Amino acid sequence: MSIRHNRGFELRKVLAGNIRAYRHKKGLSQEAFAEICGLHRTYVGSVERAERNVTLSTLEAFATALGAPVPDLLTRRSLHNGQ
Amino acid sequence: MSIRHNRGFELRKVLAGNIRAYRHKKGLSQEAFAEICGLHRTYVGSVERAERNVTLSTLEAFATALGAPVPDLLTRRSLHNGQ
Repeated sequence: MSIRHNRGFELRKVLAGNIRAYRHKKGLSQEAFAEICGLHRTYVGSVERAERNVTLSTLEAFATALGAPVPDLLTRRSLHNGQ
Repeated sequence: MSIRHNRGFELRKVLAGNIRAYRHKKGLSQEAFAEICGLHRTYVGSVERAERNVTLSTLEAFATALGAPVPDLLTRRSLHNGQ
């Protein structure tokens, strides 16, 4: 796998962990969360597996649904330790 | 213009302002900055006009080129006042 292909992978992992952590904190299933975002459950699942190179507008939909600032969703933290 | 079409516009404006501010701080032209990022100058121009719904991997390229954390690029601030 090329470096170019891997570009953004760390960031995708940070986003994945934060989304899962915030979603659990709100007691939302992937399906309920996806519905609030107006996205498909399988898409949310792939974001949580760090598979998606999401766009700003999707980031904003996640942030709005989770009540979290966008920058927080991209900040590496220990919030999701212990999940 | 629909709400859906506008989704992410505020975020695009925040990113645009921060990229311009960081780029000026480093004394880089759009062309030089684009070259460091491995992107075209016209693409960088359209990002700075808040026209692009950029992805995580592009955000990371910008952050690396500017020496700025990704979350900072999406944080509303007064850094670029006075430009």
